[in-house]
Amino acid sequence: MTYRAPINDILLSLNHGAGLAAAVEAGHYGDFDGDITAAVLEEAGKFASDVLAPLNKVGDEHGIKLDNGKVTTAPGWPDAYQRWTAAGWNAVSGPEAFGGQGLPLAINAACTEIWSASNVAFGLCPLLTLSAIEALDAHGNDELKKIYLEKLVTGEWTGTMQLTEPNAGSDVGALRTRAERADDGTYRIKGTKIFITYGEHDMTDNIVHFVLARLPDAPAGTKGISLFLVPKFLVNADGSLGERNDIHASGVEHKLGMHASPTCTMTMGDKGGAIGYLIGEENAGMRCMFTMMNQARLGVGLEGVGIADRAYQQALAYAQERRQGKAIGKALGHKGDGMDPIIVHPDVKRMLMQMRSMTAAARTICYATAVALDVSVRAKDAKVRADAAARGALLTPIAKAFSTDIGNEVAYLGVQIHGGMGFIEETGAAQHYRDARITSIYEGTNGIQSIDLVTRKLGANGGASVWVLLDELAATIKQVETSNDPAFGTTGAKLRDAHAALARASKWLLERLAAAPNEALAGATPYLRLFGATLGGCMLAGEALAAKANGEAEPQRYVALARFFAENIAVQAPSLEKTVTESAEAVTGADAVLAG
Amino acid sequence: MTYRAPINDILLSLNHGAGLAAAVEAGHYGDFDGDITAAVLEEAGKFASDVLAPLNKVGDEHGIKLDNGKVTTAPGWPDAYQRWTAAGWNAVSGPEAFGGQGLPLAINAACTEIWSASNVAFGLCPLLTLSAIEALDAHGNDELKKIYLEKLVTGEWTGTMQLTEPNAGSDVGALRTRAERADDGTYRIKGTKIFITYGEHDMTDNIVHFVLARLPDAPAGTKGISLFLVPKFLVNADGSLGERNDIHASGVEHKLGMHASPTCTMTMGDKGGAIGYLIGEENAGMRCMFTMMNQARLGVGLEGVGIADRAYQQALAYAQERRQGKAIGKALGHKGDGMDPIIVHPDVKRMLMQMRSMTAAARTICYATAVALDVSVRAKDAKVRADAAARGALLTPIAKAFSTDIGNEVAYLGVQIHGGMGFIEETGAAQHYRDARITSIYEGTNGIQSIDLVTRKLGANGGASVWVLLDELAATIKQVETSNDPAFGTTGAKLRDAHAALARASKWLLERLAAAPNEALAGATPYLRLFGATLGGCMLAGEALAAKANGEAEPQRYVALARFFAENIAVQAPSLEKTVTESAEAVTGADAVLAG
Repeated sequence: MTYRAPINDILLSLNHGAGLAAAVEAGHYGDFDGDITAAVLEEAGKFASDVLAPLNKVGDEHGIKLDNGKVTTAPGWPDAYQRWTAAGWNAVSGPEAFGGQGLPLAINAACTEIWSASNVAFGLCPLLTLSAIEALDAHGNDELKKIYLEKLVTGEWTGTMQLTEPNAGSDVGALRTRAERADDGTYRIKGTKIFITYGEHDMTDNIVHFVLARLPDAPAGTKGISLFLVPKFLVNADGSLGERNDIHASGVEHKLGMHASPTCTMTMGDKGGAIGYLIGEENAGMRCMFTMMNQARLGVGLEGVGIADRAYQQALAYAQERRQGKAIGKALGHKGDGMDPIIVHPDVKRMLMQMRSMTAAARTICYATAVALDVSVRAKDAKVRADAAARGALLTPIAKAFSTDIGNEVAYLGVQIHGGMGFIEETGAAQHYRDARITSIYEGTNGIQSIDLVTRKLGANGGASVWVLLDELAATIKQVETSNDPAFGTTGAKLRDAHAALARASKWLLERLAAAPNEALAGATPYLRLFGATLGGCMLAGEALAAKANGEAEPQRYVALARFFAENIAVQAPSLEKTVTESAEAVTGADAVLAG
Repeated sequence: MTYRAPINDILLSLNHGAGLAAAVEAGHYGDFDGDITAAVLEEAGKFASDVLAPLNKVGDEHGIKLDNGKVTTAPGWPDAYQRWTAAGWNAVSGPEAFGGQGLPLAINAACTEIWSASNVAFGLCPLLTLSAIEALDAHGNDELKKIYLEKLVTGEWTGTMQLTEPNAGSDVGALRTRAERADDGTYRIKGTKIFITYGEHDMTDNIVHFVLARLPDAPAGTKGISLFLVPKFLVNADGSLGERNDIHASGVEHKLGMHASPTCTMTMGDKGGAIGYLIGEENAGMRCMFTMMNQARLGVGLEGVGIADRAYQQALAYAQERRQGKAIGKALGHKGDGMDPIIVHPDVKRMLMQMRSMTAAARTICYATAVALDVSVRAKDAKVRADAAARGALLTPIAKAFSTDIGNEVAYLGVQIHGGMGFIEETGAAQHYRDARITSIYEGTNGIQSIDLVTRKLGANGGASVWVLLDELAATIKQVETSNDPAFGTTGAKLRDAHAALARASKWLLERLAAAPNEALAGATPYLRLFGATLGGCMLAGEALAAKANGEAEPQRYVALARFFAENIAVQAPSLEKTVTESAEAVTGADAVLAG
């Protein structure tokens, strides 16, 4: 089946869950007034349904082929990419000075969800281009920007991020690729990178690689890393393509999922070294890399949301069609003696509600991250910008890890609802399950995200970012409680418990971070889950309140959704708190068990 | 890497967690004294490591081929099967009168885990033969037993279970395959079955199909189903193979995992109808089917355990070898300036402990189910047999669903620990993840297991089976508390909370089952999880106490393992209770959300 972008849900989430409308209202978005949002998303949804969604399975089945250094993508893919860039989709949030439309990141975030839902392996390519644009725009010199930025913004050329090496994955500082200074101010890069997404392909004339490498006299570790722009084809002064640079795809991986996305081993230096141009300062590559990574992390979170929504839509359609068994009780049942669609069974309803509510929560967390990143650069007031930057930094690891965990869990349930058919590749449910699996690994594993959350985001300012957010969430909970809407069920109580659990766990972690850091690290993963469950629950409740207040059609749908999440997901918060605060010894004392 | 059966863990689980030693001591196992157990398992482990484990990846990569009705299995598979049966492994628990060794099911359960861990797609074939043996032994007439039973017991021929049809999956009563009475007392079967595991293969000369079909005058639904034995080749009076029967593989599925196991569409009746022999009475096939299914359900639970253990072993080895980052704090760290193996990182330790402790809990639940089934037929005392039968019935859905959920979760973590390498098929971690996915679906989806637990097992006798078990668990918890071993941490408190939560949820469900069955059904899945987490936690604690009491080498390993499970998994019980008892309205009221 195809995919339909859930525009109403997306708009409610973006404007009211994630706070875009309030930020626009407060003037933090300058001239942007939000009138265009719905129209952009409608068009994105149309393109996704018509062009990208049908290619999703084609890509999975055909995969890609590497032959003599050239990668051929699946049938229809280059054409779809041309149409997609021609329609301006690569340039949604790009800088206007370089051909972009300058729309908010938040709108592009919704678009990213839509591309990912329709065809995640396709959407992954521009996601990396977007990271490259960010890095070049923020850290590149004018000459490089002039040559490369517009091509990247329009999508005429794509970008890559080249960090990983066989011995340098999560530990980026261990990388060995070497850069030597040439007399003309450029550099010669030699080395091998692995797991390079869209490192080589046939969808554009040129590819602009962003490569981390080490100068001969660089300090050890992360302080000795520099970022270089390494084009596949050198670019002549007139902008035309020149010679082929010394960077080549020497292998592609055979992967569990994302078959249509080429994951390349890139070799530089077979012919003396690839010509590279420094981005930013020498040995300051980590900073540039984080510029790329933060954008990419949010993008991967949105992949989780997108895959989840696609899996949900497919499972829902199957559950409405497939007939097995009969409903218990006439009120629920359909007429006649035949079998009922399986959606009548409470256990199937539970799975579908779990899929939908978890997807909705992850969506709003991701969008809220995008709004914070927008406000951190767009707001006039410096304090507002700084607060938004802190909020964006806090939310990024949650957006990435919680959403991709959920992408995997929802895809799992999607297979489950299909029963035996879910295990058959033809059905398509299994593809979402396979594709989702990488999202909790790449761009920093979810364990790395959790550690980032605890050490850098919670720990950095004594928890200040967390307390501010908790105050906002408390206000939402109060609104739920005072709304006196019985349809909320025990939502208020569940969220209050979750809120208290998150506050206590945060305090405990802050204390342990100083006193016994390994104990804090032991709780990082359950803490991130606790954070996501609490935050997501409050955000969905806030959306429901907004839907009621704004005269949304059938607002009680959102109340029921928020209630389900609170009573089934946020309800886990007290247990997660105990896992954080009372199981550290069980983790740090694991050596005896694991040795035997 | 290969697989090593964890014999010490298995023996502790079997004898003390699952209660085999106590049952033997009480005389419930007759002549069997348990002396042979360790030797049998050592040999099984050796065969699994030497012969089956190396074929696991071969099978995944080669898959099977169907050509003109003939299925070719992967290279080395027929030979391995011959060696496996020649060594007597198919006959471990088979009836001695028909060539079996008559050993306890509990020992065969441990063997099944070992086969599944080494090569789950291989082990699946004899699992179905075992079900066929059970059904034939329990319900077949002497003539059929004489011809078929010994061949099935030795594994010279394999068996299949043929229930599923395109419109009859979870709803078995909807099947349409027809059986017509022939003049000679046999039947002619016509119809199509799907998803038939090892429905056709090249590992044995003959295949004995057990087919559910409907007589022309049969009542509708499950009361009109009969079970037939349908051999691939008819058998002459002298035992030699006769004519080819009219049952053929007309298709095979392209699946997410279990590539080496042929999943066939079976067509009967192209030439007038397959000759079938009635098992049991006409229209009494459901009873026979449940005989097959219960055995198969436990077997699938053991697949979950086996895959989990294999995934754990592989992840552990990777975590000990792969170096990234440095440990925090000298006490933990390894010497030198280089990177540490990732096992030093608390988040990796957490994942490994989660994998190991969940696997151990699922193992003991499965073994305890097997012990109960053994005692239900072996004990001299009728009351003991009846109680054991009730216990076995109660535990079967938990053994199946909890263990296979865990198989999936552990395989997921196994991929995660491998980082990017986990997504690459070459690594092998992804195969476990793919293979595991079917286990929570086949032989009754885990949703069906949960419903079975709530309606038939909890509900059947007013909860009596549950209360008896809860009393036993309370005794274990008391022992933990009075042991005063600080290494248990908060194990006692966590288990006591879990126990109370399970008791309250059970009472609530019993009450709702009568008053509002859909509300009880809405809580079925979280209830089964709550049950498994509580039961598994108590069993691991019991094992740890036994390890200490029996002078096991390094008994504190088991204490640490039990503690981790209690503080990280069993701790979820109170939240799961709330999900059962306070979220039913959120589930049953889902229609408005799911419609929009």
